[in-house]
Amino acid sequence: MGTTKKKRELSFKEYTEGILCGNRSILSQAITLVESTLPKHSELAQKIINHCLPHTGKSIRIGITGIPGVGKSTFIETFGLYLTGEEKRTVAVLAIDPTSELSKGSILGDKVRMEKLSLDQNAFIRPSPTSGSLGGVAQSTRETILLCEAAGFNTVIVETVGVGQSEIAVDSMVDFFLLLLLAGAGDEIQGMKRGIMEMADTVAITKADGDNISRAQRARKEFENAIHLFPHKESGWVPEVTTCSSLANKGIKEIWKTVIKHQDLIEKSGILQHKRQEQTKRWMHEAILYGLKKSFYSNEDINKTVLELEKKVIEGEKSPFTAANELLAKYFKNIS
Amino acid sequence: MGTTKKKRELSFKEYTEGILCGNRSILSQAITLVESTLPKHSELAQKIINHCLPHTGKSIRIGITGIPGVGKSTFIETFGLYLTGEEKRTVAVLAIDPTSELSKGSILGDKVRMEKLSLDQNAFIRPSPTSGSLGGVAQSTRETILLCEAAGFNTVIVETVGVGQSEIAVDSMVDFFLLLLLAGAGDEIQGMKRGIMEMADTVAITKADGDNISRAQRARKEFENAIHLFPHKESGWVPEVTTCSSLANKGIKEIWKTVIKHQDLIEKSGILQHKRQEQTKRWMHEAILYGLKKSFYSNEDINKTVLELEKKVIEGEKSPFTAANELLAKYFKNIS
Repeated sequence: MGTTKKKRELSFKEYTEGILCGNRSILSQAITLVESTLPKHSELAQKIINHCLPHTGKSIRIGITGIPGVGKSTFIETFGLYLTGEEKRTVAVLAIDPTSELSKGSILGDKVRMEKLSLDQNAFIRPSPTSGSLGGVAQSTRETILLCEAAGFNTVIVETVGVGQSEIAVDSMVDFFLLLLLAGAGDEIQGMKRGIMEMADTVAITKADGDNISRAQRARKEFENAIHLFPHKESGWVPEVTTCSSLANKGIKEIWKTVIKHQDLIEKSGILQHKRQEQTKRWMHEAILYGLKKSFYSNEDINKTVLELEKKVIEGEKSPFTAANELLAKYFKNIS
Repeated sequence: MGTTKKKRELSFKEYTEGILCGNRSILSQAITLVESTLPKHSELAQKIINHCLPHTGKSIRIGITGIPGVGKSTFIETFGLYLTGEEKRTVAVLAIDPTSELSKGSILGDKVRMEKLSLDQNAFIRPSPTSGSLGGVAQSTRETILLCEAAGFNTVIVETVGVGQSEIAVDSMVDFFLLLLLAGAGDEIQGMKRGIMEMADTVAITKADGDNISRAQRARKEFENAIHLFPHKESGWVPEVTTCSSLANKGIKEIWKTVIKHQDLIEKSGILQHKRQEQTKRWMHEAILYGLKKSFYSNEDINKTVLELEKKVIEGEKSPFTAANELLAKYFKNIS
């Protein structure tokens, strides 16, 4: 395949052949196609994904989340290097970040913050798209997972950047959900979305090094006591709580072993297959919902009136249901 | 107003006057109108709600959830009777239960299981609608809250029947979220939706009576330790953990005091107003989403093909995004 100039548009054949033989440059361009909002790009992207479909689904999909400051990038760099090194795996790192404004920074950031991993021949780091609603970003991330798998990556890490709804979207994409937490929880987890803790398959207390070790261990004990009170997982899996240090390279291997143990459990019990099928079905229905919402909210007439009605609703002048009905009537009249 | 025969249709004036002077029979009929799927009913219902709007928002809205067997109805009966008695409050109890099949039983059940409360002049118990998707049920419950407030009820309890997504819908309707749990959590909370524990403003361990007292107290201690590890609430409120017995009438008053303490906190800090505004806005957008989904999935052509495509998607023959696009294209062609 060699070098591909940015300007030239690749053909369907070039895309699919390139992806299936693991050409990263072509994989990158295909992801850009997936992220594009131009109809002709989407159409080609869909053709490519469908062609790649038989080659997908064979990776371990891991979601990693945690608030800013928890050391997510450092963790992923260390974890990723361990996987490509000792475990001889190939690793794709994707990021979900629907906060369009902030992400302009994180694009540059991604390369810097995972410097070593980004140079690794067996790793592929894809920064999050620069903009878009959660629905759009979630959809393109799902499509990107499939492309990375078709390109031969057997480990896909989906990282959430920032905090909020995106963690819930990630949970619907992955096999294993890792929550990174700081010791001395208190204020640090204030920014965390409620409900996340109960989604975790493993909680890892980060920065367990130097002066911080005993604090981290205390936190581990506390969370371990708490976690058995959580609703159980369908698989019977009891979330593990562990400590780790990316700096001292401690506890990283153990987390990977836990991932493998979990994957074995859900694979043998048939839960993985079932979970993936449910996720795929959900992806379809969420893509439908996203399409319906996009058509509605991007309708010029709706766009003009929605804020006005929102204001009336907030001020108690109109019931939210009446406002919704008015907007819906206007929309259906417009598009028919 | 006197007796109103079921058959005769009331006028807009009869409805609104009846509701605003607290006539329960008319309130009941208005709720039936809200729950109806006939366009002419919805239209009238919207007119009524808009007329009532200035008289809404003055109640304390409480969500109560817990798995079957936790003693929810007994708790609500005892709690409700305490409120109408000692606290001289008026109480409306609504139920969310999107599991259409089961709810046919619970309609009869509601009257039986809260026998005393249903005879109380200052209480109003409305069983959940007999059928419908979560989206539809959630919308009519929201509208019903407004009608009950207009009819003068100063306490609205929204109960979830069954387990699942409905707890999350309830959280978007209420000021205070009470989670009922059984001592000896383990298996009992297996059926609970993940993420619910972190939503609770108070966790109450039920059936703390007789032989069960020490077990309940142990559970309380455990949850108390766990709960400070949860992400904090915006208001700074730290969820309380308590024990109660509906049978022995213990701990009921204390739960009410906690509700009041929480309400004071969020009222004074302006968080209540903000929360209600955000909820109202969300109600509007969810009603829009519900309308879009209903139009899509009830489209005859879509209805015929959606399962077929779901099957192809699950079997890996087609990407979920392509399937979604095909369905969307078909839908938009059909309605234009």
